[in-house]
Amino acid sequence: MSFSSRIDVQFRIPYSYPVFLTDGLFSAPGISGNGENLSAAEYLKTQKNSVADLIVDEGVVAKVPDRLQAFKSFFEIEDALVLTGGEAIKEQPDIVDKLHQRWLGKELDRHKQVVIIGGGAVLDAAGFAASLFHRGMGHIRMPSTVLAQNDAGVGVKNGVNKFEQKNFVGCFKPPTAVINDYQLLSTLEDQDFYSGYAEAVKVALIRSPAFYSWLTHNSEALASKKPEQVKYLIALCAQLHLNQISQGGDPFEEGSARPLDFGHWLGHRLEVLTNHQLTHGEAVAIGIASDTALSVELGLLEAEHLNQVVSLLRGLKLPVFHELVSAACETPQSESFLKLYKGLEDFRQHLGGQLSIELLKGLGKGFAVNEIKPEQVLSAFRRVAGLC
Amino acid sequence: MSFSSRIDVQFRIPYSYPVFLTDGLFSAPGISGNGENLSAAEYLKTQKNSVADLIVDEGVVAKVPDRLQAFKSFFEIEDALVLTGGEAIKEQPDIVDKLHQRWLGKELDRHKQVVIIGGGAVLDAAGFAASLFHRGMGHIRMPSTVLAQNDAGVGVKNGVNKFEQKNFVGCFKPPTAVINDYQLLSTLEDQDFYSGYAEAVKVALIRSPAFYSWLTHNSEALASKKPEQVKYLIALCAQLHLNQISQGGDPFEEGSARPLDFGHWLGHRLEVLTNHQLTHGEAVAIGIASDTALSVELGLLEAEHLNQVVSLLRGLKLPVFHELVSAACETPQSESFLKLYKGLEDFRQHLGGQLSIELLKGLGKGFAVNEIKPEQVLSAFRRVAGLC
Repeated sequence: MSFSSRIDVQFRIPYSYPVFLTDGLFSAPGISGNGENLSAAEYLKTQKNSVADLIVDEGVVAKVPDRLQAFKSFFEIEDALVLTGGEAIKEQPDIVDKLHQRWLGKELDRHKQVVIIGGGAVLDAAGFAASLFHRGMGHIRMPSTVLAQNDAGVGVKNGVNKFEQKNFVGCFKPPTAVINDYQLLSTLEDQDFYSGYAEAVKVALIRSPAFYSWLTHNSEALASKKPEQVKYLIALCAQLHLNQISQGGDPFEEGSARPLDFGHWLGHRLEVLTNHQLTHGEAVAIGIASDTALSVELGLLEAEHLNQVVSLLRGLKLPVFHELVSAACETPQSESFLKLYKGLEDFRQHLGGQLSIELLKGLGKGFAVNEIKPEQVLSAFRRVAGLC
Repeated sequence: MSFSSRIDVQFRIPYSYPVFLTDGLFSAPGISGNGENLSAAEYLKTQKNSVADLIVDEGVVAKVPDRLQAFKSFFEIEDALVLTGGEAIKEQPDIVDKLHQRWLGKELDRHKQVVIIGGGAVLDAAGFAASLFHRGMGHIRMPSTVLAQNDAGVGVKNGVNKFEQKNFVGCFKPPTAVINDYQLLSTLEDQDFYSGYAEAVKVALIRSPAFYSWLTHNSEALASKKPEQVKYLIALCAQLHLNQISQGGDPFEEGSARPLDFGHWLGHRLEVLTNHQLTHGEAVAIGIASDTALSVELGLLEAEHLNQVVSLLRGLKLPVFHELVSAACETPQSESFLKLYKGLEDFRQHLGGQLSIELLKGLGKGFAVNEIKPEQVLSAFRRVAGLC
């Protein structure tokens, strides 16, 4: 036996989880004609012994009297916890403690798992609590909004807000499984429904000309919430989001690139400045319009493309402009401009000092840009203003 | 484009980190004759730009006036945070918040990292805080006790206690690097120094007949704290611990097996029942004696081996028995026995209901056992009592 003065530790952790697309799993898990429900129901049967708690977003059950009972019966959990969802739950300082106290009382261990049914905020907060409990208990996600079903709800991030900063604490921990049930969307308000389309436009613009083209040809059906088209939009958007995670080479975001954050620097900023009166999706839609204009400004994209993107967003009942943006159309030194421009600086800091912003060099083709001048952002704002 | 009703997400996350064994890195990083210091110092140079904070265990600097300044100069961090170490820091309810507040004030981001110099508790608590900050900031560990240098301090777990349960919240997050500097051990109390040998005996017993044999031949030198032997013990023990992580097939402990927990069920229990008057190492030493006796009781090991293990532990100035164990030598129904036996039940619960306890089927050969009767534990206690 000898020893070296340097030991190199190396290992890999394999992760895998299924994402099911179902419709009415709880009302007809096995008998429905569609195989989706059957295979998800069969999968859940294999998890039955370990499922030990059920967390439900109030918004999902408030308007449908029997739904909570249907969840409870399906998972055989009688004392489900109903939480008020929305961003506020991620601000609640003791939400993680409360859940831990509950699981301590139920004597759960890390080989158990919890089912979380709700919007992105409930999924983030309860998923985070589960991920820390005894160094990591599993969780099954059932996202209940278009946005959660086609974007972050199917991904690998958890967290809560702290010190007024979004996702200040959190971790990367893939769920055991995700079930995207279309029926859960039935009680969504219009504003929340259409908001979910923004991430689809985003991911189409940076990743898939074919999906972008499909969106333009189906925008009327989507505006009328035709189930066939909505299901397709969610499926494709979720798939593209998941491709980025599993094939993008950096699922836990160790590097500086944030390729899925097209349109998000301004979006984040507008959410904060409007005290979340703009939904995430609406704010992102405005950010998409602005970043598309910025791509034109940088000579990456033709001006005609901006018109097309703005039409698509409008066709999908999404906003493309906001009074805070029109107020900012002054000088790069004006307070109203700097208030928005700070979003880019926040991004730079979050990334560790080196800016990397995804823009477009085609409709369906993202392109990372490392340097952006305030003047260019201002001109981009003015371009969108000119169309409004 | 078509979509499937089930998307399977699969990816792997590769982890790697170096563990350096140095001696006096801070007093003579580059000029010392030993290459260990040089290669660690060179490595740290490559990390300099990202190291943005320094957390130091008070115990490491209390008795050596210049040490704190040496750390600060080395890492070029003037406002290091000195924390009172020991298990109490993991019980402090706001320790994670306090560190987050500090890092918020310093405007750190997730591409920065912190250096933590201290015993296992400080490493666990500050490493946990770093791992959650902006979904994971890196940390470099410099363990300052024999126990931390040869066992958990070089591993991948973080966490703090909550609701009076050890490591109730935590996560798996490998450090960026570990530096085991021998000089940091110079101010350890005897009790803490010898306590660290317990994990070496443990890992030798379950993994390496050669290391076990080396320990028996060098117990006198180790009892006199001869540097050459102590360094060798730490290096080998750390290597075996790291082999389990990187080659054991389950670095993040997804399964039920806890192969490194030989001697730990009783150890944990004694720590709690004595309010940590027994150190972790002392409690584990008593647990090793008892689990070795249990292996004899189950017919896995010869009785003569128990004598040898008890002699080795004593030769290394470790305890093998405790009044709580002698008090428990009554009946399997007695309160004093059940108080200890609860440790096995806690383990079973922690593992999700299926017991898996590592015992011995040879000196250097671990063996997982799934069923243990109270009578067998009682007989094991009596066997050790008979030797004392």
